[in-house]
Amino acid sequence: MMRIAVVGYGNIGKFAVEAVDAAPDMELAGVVRRKARGETLPGIQVVEDIRALGPVDVALLCVPTRSVEETALQYLAAGFHTVDSFDIHTNIPALRRTLHQAAVEAGKVAVISSGWDPGSDSVVRALMQACAPSGVTYTNFGPGMSMGHTVAVKAIEGVEGALSMTIPVGSGIHRRMVYVQLKPGAKLEEVAAKIKADPYFVNDETHVVAVDDINTVMDRGHGVHMVRKGTSGKTDNQRFEFNMSINNPALTAQVMVSCARAAMRQKPGCYTMIEIPVVDLLPGDRDQWVASLV
Amino acid sequence: MMRIAVVGYGNIGKFAVEAVDAAPDMELAGVVRRKARGETLPGIQVVEDIRALGPVDVALLCVPTRSVEETALQYLAAGFHTVDSFDIHTNIPALRRTLHQAAVEAGKVAVISSGWDPGSDSVVRALMQACAPSGVTYTNFGPGMSMGHTVAVKAIEGVEGALSMTIPVGSGIHRRMVYVQLKPGAKLEEVAAKIKADPYFVNDETHVVAVDDINTVMDRGHGVHMVRKGTSGKTDNQRFEFNMSINNPALTAQVMVSCARAAMRQKPGCYTMIEIPVVDLLPGDRDQWVASLV
Repeated sequence: MMRIAVVGYGNIGKFAVEAVDAAPDMELAGVVRRKARGETLPGIQVVEDIRALGPVDVALLCVPTRSVEETALQYLAAGFHTVDSFDIHTNIPALRRTLHQAAVEAGKVAVISSGWDPGSDSVVRALMQACAPSGVTYTNFGPGMSMGHTVAVKAIEGVEGALSMTIPVGSGIHRRMVYVQLKPGAKLEEVAAKIKADPYFVNDETHVVAVDDINTVMDRGHGVHMVRKGTSGKTDNQRFEFNMSINNPALTAQVMVSCARAAMRQKPGCYTMIEIPVVDLLPGDRDQWVASLV
Repeated sequence: MMRIAVVGYGNIGKFAVEAVDAAPDMELAGVVRRKARGETLPGIQVVEDIRALGPVDVALLCVPTRSVEETALQYLAAGFHTVDSFDIHTNIPALRRTLHQAAVEAGKVAVISSGWDPGSDSVVRALMQACAPSGVTYTNFGPGMSMGHTVAVKAIEGVEGALSMTIPVGSGIHRRMVYVQLKPGAKLEEVAAKIKADPYFVNDETHVVAVDDINTVMDRGHGVHMVRKGTSGKTDNQRFEFNMSINNPALTAQVMVSCARAAMRQKPGCYTMIEIPVVDLLPGDRDQWVASLV
């Protein structure tokens, strides 16, 4: 049995505990939180220092994206494989370089950006590219809640609660429907202007709607609609499509748990999901999956 | 530049030549046919013995499935990586064991079952399994021409020409629509009874229709509709869907060509596509694909 520590116990950490529990080849060593004092979770050990959990193979870093690099460097150096769901696409190559060096030095494996996008969607994009090397892939997100955009709105003055919904309008273009619960005295026009000027929103059609209670519009469902039309060899008009309708943190956590298994099976270094054989994500013996899935 | 030999010049071999030609990192060494004498293809060297082609890195085995094992053993022993599209699902584990030993002994790589099903569909099935470990995946084929079923019909007495169309009726169940051009004097009822008793058809709803000229119904388009509904961690009702509408031999050949590239990048042994990182299917440097696809 692999022993897994869940680092961070927010939205994704909670679902990660469930996914580890459901995995036939893993056991939960415990949860690591910055302020664990006095806190108890039924049947789960909660600590501030991972070393209090006994032997641990993989640390699942369920921490905010901007804390991933620092946290991963710390856990790799301490002798653990790490898995994260770092999701700032443009910064992935730099993170990969940094963690690769640290992982090789530590003799450990870091699997980065292992959610669904980046993550499982990336695998499908790479596969579509291999099936039709010339052509265009459009990744259409939603309808669903964008965690990053929601956090950006919450940081704006006058906002008590927020939900930023991503609405696909085709060809990889998205509309942002932003629901805000305003603080007393805050004016919708002013808040809306600040949201629309934010880098997260400035390039997209954005609508801001005030609601009395943000909880009445909450839904963690999300989805993707990816399409590629391209050329295989010299044959045009090959069409590929991948769709999902999923609970966002549940899928992110499940993919991270599957990648924890893969981490145990790679040579030391840092990997994105397109660099890992998909069979390594699955429990048990390779041969059974070749027989049942190929 | 990798030098590729296309072994066999039937339906898939012709498209393989085009896919090699379109690949930025490959050149066609030539085509190997059993009876090459006197034959010329514009700008392509056609030989009976691969050694006449000069240096070759990978042999693409565009031969009938039942000839794959023998052909692969021969080419591996002669010092070439091999790629095939062996498509009898139940026999894949045995082929993999046999070729693995031969490949290791030769210090070469064999990539097997590298079409679209088995092949790219297998990668998607494995990925869906990792995203929702419990649940059911249905692979629905078509509408499209089944090569294997068509060949089986052609072997039946009284059949001049045939087309077996696979029609999806959902939940992985298929109807077979078989079009036959009868030989003079053959009776439809007798031919239909033989077709329905054939192991290829005995388990499926099968309709046999006589046509005057089989060429009037020919179409090499095919497709797949794969769906999985399952559980990520403890969250039910996660839904995944992969669809394709493609030219069948063109995609098979393209996937084989992409796997030829991957063959150059694996350790000696035999691999199915779920055992190969998808990035290895793509030309050029890994880092650029991590930046653009992840």
